[in-house]
Amino acid sequence: MLERLKEEVCAANLDLVEKGVVIYTWGNVSGISDDRNYMVIKPSGVDYHGMKPDDMVVVDVTTSDTVEGKWKPSSDTKTHLEIYRAFSCVGGIAHTHSVNAVAFAQAGFPIPALGTTHADYFYGAIPCTRELTQDEVEIAYETNTGKVIVEHIHTAGYDPMAIPGILVKNHGPFAWGKNATDSVYNAVVMEKVAEMDLKTMLLNPNSSMEQFVLDKHYQRKHGPNAYYGQR
Amino acid sequence: MLERLKEEVCAANLDLVEKGVVIYTWGNVSGISDDRNYMVIKPSGVDYHGMKPDDMVVVDVTTSDTVEGKWKPSSDTKTHLEIYRAFSCVGGIAHTHSVNAVAFAQAGFPIPALGTTHADYFYGAIPCTRELTQDEVEIAYETNTGKVIVEHIHTAGYDPMAIPGILVKNHGPFAWGKNATDSVYNAVVMEKVAEMDLKTMLLNPNSSMEQFVLDKHYQRKHGPNAYYGQR
Amino acid sequence: MLERLKEEVCAANLDLVEKGVVIYTWGNVSGISDDRNYMVIKPSGVDYHGMKPDDMVVVDVTTSDTVEGKWKPSSDTKTHLEIYRAFSCVGGIAHTHSVNAVAFAQAGFPIPALGTTHADYFYGAIPCTRELTQDEVEIAYETNTGKVIVEHIHTAGYDPMAIPGILVKNHGPFAWGKNATDSVYNAVVMEKVAEMDLKTMLLNPNSSMEQFVLDKHYQRKHGPNAYYGQR
Amino acid sequence: MLERLKEEVCAANLDLVEKGVVIYTWGNVSGISDDRNYMVIKPSGVDYHGMKPDDMVVVDVTTSDTVEGKWKPSSDTKTHLEIYRAFSCVGGIAHTHSVNAVAFAQAGFPIPALGTTHADYFYGAIPCTRELTQDEVEIAYETNTGKVIVEHIHTAGYDPMAIPGILVKNHGPFAWGKNATDSVYNAVVMEKVAEMDLKTMLLNPNSSMEQFVLDKHYQRKHGPNAYYGQR
Repeated sequence: MLERLKEEVCAANLDLVEKGVVIYTWGNVSGISDDRNYMVIKPSGVDYHGMKPDDMVVVDVTTSDTVEGKWKPSSDTKTHLEIYRAFSCVGGIAHTHSVNAVAFAQAGFPIPALGTTHADYFYGAIPCTRELTQDEVEIAYETNTGKVIVEHIHTAGYDPMAIPGILVKNHGPFAWGKNATDSVYNAVVMEKVAEMDLKTMLLNPNSSMEQFVLDKHYQRKHGPNAYYGQR
Repeated sequence: MLERLKEEVCAANLDLVEKGVVIYTWGNVSGISDDRNYMVIKPSGVDYHGMKPDDMVVVDVTTSDTVEGKWKPSSDTKTHLEIYRAFSCVGGIAHTHSVNAVAFAQAGFPIPALGTTHADYFYGAIPCTRELTQDEVEIAYETNTGKVIVEHIHTAGYDPMAIPGILVKNHGPFAWGKNATDSVYNAVVMEKVAEMDLKTMLLNPNSSMEQFVLDKHYQRKHGPNAYYGQR
Repeated sequence: MLERLKEEVCAANLDLVEKGVVIYTWGNVSGISDDRNYMVIKPSGVDYHGMKPDDMVVVDVTTSDTVEGKWKPSSDTKTHLEIYRAFSCVGGIAHTHSVNAVAFAQAGFPIPALGTTHADYFYGAIPCTRELTQDEVEIAYETNTGKVIVEHIHTAGYDPMAIPGILVKNHGPFAWGKNATDSVYNAVVMEKVAEMDLKTMLLNPNSSMEQFVLDKHYQRKHGPNAYYGQR
Repeated sequence: MLERLKEEVCAANLDLVEKGVVIYTWGNVSGISDDRNYMVIKPSGVDYHGMKPDDMVVVDVTTSDTVEGKWKPSSDTKTHLEIYRAFSCVGGIAHTHSVNAVAFAQAGFPIPALGTTHADYFYGAIPCTRELTQDEVEIAYETNTGKVIVEHIHTAGYDPMAIPGILVKNHGPFAWGKNATDSVYNAVVMEKVAEMDLKTMLLNPNSSMEQFVLDKHYQRKHGPNAYYGQR
C-alpha cells in the first residue's frame, strides 16, 4: 500500500544523510497519505545505508497501530502523529539532531529571525518549546513531546506552515512542510540559519531585523502576490 | 544571443555550489555584455542541478525587461542592474548566502581588514550598508537594495573595484569583478575572510592591521607595479 | 591467530578516518579476544591508507608482550590494556584526537549532558580525568594514563558501559564499547556531542538538562525495557 | 635539473589542496637541494589544478635568481630563502592561509601548547612574529618577512626543528621540516592544533598544560629515546 508515498518518504530520509544533518540512525522523516488515514515513517534504529522504500513503516493515524512494514516504526512515531492530528496542513515531518539547531535547543533559545535567509522560509523566530514535566517525560514521552509542540503553536496562535519548524528543549529540531520532501528542505534551512545566527550572536549579541524586512522577504516568496521563483 | 556570456554565467553559477557558498536555489551570478546593453543572469528559484547555459535569462540593462529566456530572471535582478548602471567597471556580480559573510551582515558589521588574505583582494574593510527604510523595502525593494549599495560606495567615495564586495544589512554579501567568474572568486574570498575574521575577533576583539601592510599587499597584486602572479 | 578479530579491528580503525575523527596516523582502536587473553590493536605510527587486517598487532593482555605482528603495537597499547584489565565488560577501545572532544580535554572540562543526543548514549556527563603527576608522566606514562582513567571511574563509582568514554586531561578522548566497532561509534558520538555542547555553552553558559530526561532517553535505548530500535 | 625534488615539491603543493589548507592559488611549498644550492618552489599565482613537476621553479639560494622554470617563482620566494639561509636543518617550507592558524596570526597571538596533539609535533607554543615596520614592509617586504621569522627564532634561542612553524603577524602560518613533504605535514598539524586551541580558549581562557607533559610527548616521538612509531 502507499507505494508512491513510501518512495518519497524513503528518499526524503536518505536526503537527511546527503545534506549532512544526520549521522548513523539519527533523525527520521514521515509523510501522510492524501486521505490523512496513514502515516509512512522510517523504521526505528535502522541504518540509512541501503534503506529502501520497502523498509518504510505504515502507521494508522487514528489508532497509532502499525498496519504494514517489516520493522518497528521510529521511536518518535507518536510525536509525528500528534503534529499531524493537530494540523491538517502538515503533510510531512522531519526530525534531525543537526548540530547548530541542537545547540539552540540545548540552550533553550529560539532561533531568532535575524536575516533574509530566515525570512525566506520562516515568518518569525523558530521557537523553543517549554521543558516537559517529569510526568510528561515518564509517561507517554513521545506523545507528550508532540503535545508540547502543538501546545506551543496553539498558545502562540500562529499558522504552523508560516513557521514550519520548532525546537524541542534539550532535544532538537522538528521541521515540517506540505510533504516529506518539503519537511527535509525546512530542516536543512533551520540548521543553516541556526549556524548563521549562532555566529551572528557571537559577533553582536544585540542583532535584530526589522519586522518590515521579515514581512517583505516572507511575502515575496509565500504571500498571495509572491514573485520569487517560477509561477 | 550572447551564447558565450551565457556559458560563462552558467559556469559561474555552478561554481557557487562547487565552492560551497550556496545550497538549494540560493544565490545568483550575472554578467554584462561587452556593449553593456544586456545582462545575463540565473533564473529565479531554479535548482543548480542540471542547470545549462540555455537556462540563463537575458535582461535589457536600460529597460529591465527580459529579452530572452524560458524562465523569469533572478528575483535579485534589479539589484544587479543598479550596480551595473552605477559602475561601468563592474562586469559580473555574485550574490550568495554564505554563512560567515551573512553573520557579519546580520550583525551589521563590516568585515574588517585584519590580514593579508583580505588585503590581497580587498583594499579596506568590506562595508555593511545601512538598513533600508520601510518605504524602501515595501516599494521597489530589489531596486532599492541596489541603490543602497551604490549610495554607500558613492558616499564613502571609493573605487568599487578596489573593494569588490559589500554586505547588505540583514541580508548577505554581494561581490563583483571584471566578469562573472571574477565575481564568484571575490564572493568565495569574502566568505573565507569573514570566517577568519570572526575567529580572530573571538580570540582578540582588538585585532587590527597597519595601513602600510594593507597598501603593500593590495598593491603588489593590483597596483601599477604589481608583481604577484605571472605577467 | 584471531583473524576475525583482526578484520574487525582493522575495519574499525579505518572507520575513524571515514568518520573524520582522525588524520594521519592519529588515533587507534583495539579489540579483545573472547577469552580476554589477547588484545588486537593498530600498529604504532602507521598510516591508515592501505592498512590491512594483517597489519594489526596481537598483544598478550597479561604480560603486555607482542605475540604476533610485523609491527610494533600502538604507543597507547598500555593505556588500552589497563582499561581491559579493570573492566571485563569492555570489548573494544577507540582513541582519537577529534577536535571538539580535545577542546574539552584541553580545557579540563567534562562534556556535560545537555541534550537527548548525549542521553541516548552516555548516562551522564563524560568526565575529564585529573592531571597526571610528574612522576606518573615520566615513569610508565601510558600505563598511568590507563590507571588514571580506571581510578576516575572507580572513585566516581559508575558502570563504565553506561558512560562509555572519558577525556584524558590535556590529551583527548578514549571511548569504548562491547567491541571495537561499538567503541568507534561512541567516539564519533562523543565528538558530535562535544561540538553541540561547545556551541550550546557559547549561546548559554547556564544550559542544563533535567535528570529525568537523561533517565528517559538513556533507558529507552539501553534499559531493561528499552524500546528504541528493532528487538 | 633536480627532477626528483621537483616531483616531491609539486606533490607537496598538491597535498595542500588535498588537506584543505589552501584554496585557489594561495599557499606555496618549497624544498632545497641536498647541496643547498638550489630551492625548488611553486610558481606565483598559478592554479593547483593540473600543476606538474615541470611547472616548479628552480631558484639559486645564494643569488635569489631563477635558474630554471617557465614561470616566475612564488611571490614569497625571498621569505623562503631567508629561512633556508639561516637554518641549515630546514629542508622544506610550506606557507598556507589556513583559517584557524590565520585567526591566531591576525589576533597576534601564539598558538599555545595546550595538549598532546601539539606536543607530539611542536615543543612549545608556536610563536607569532612581531609586526614588520613600515620600512620593512615598503622595502624588500618578502625578504624582511623572512628576516623577522629568523630574528624571532634567534632571539628566543630555540631549535627551529623543535618548533617547526611560526605565525607571521597579520599574515599567516609558515611551517617547515626536513623536506617539503614534512613541511606540509607540519602545516596541517598547525591548522588542526589552532582549531583545537581556539575552541579550548572559548571554553576556558585559562587553559594550560604542564611542562612535563610537553616534554614527555615531544620526547617520546622526537627525543633520543623516541619509541613512537616503527624504528
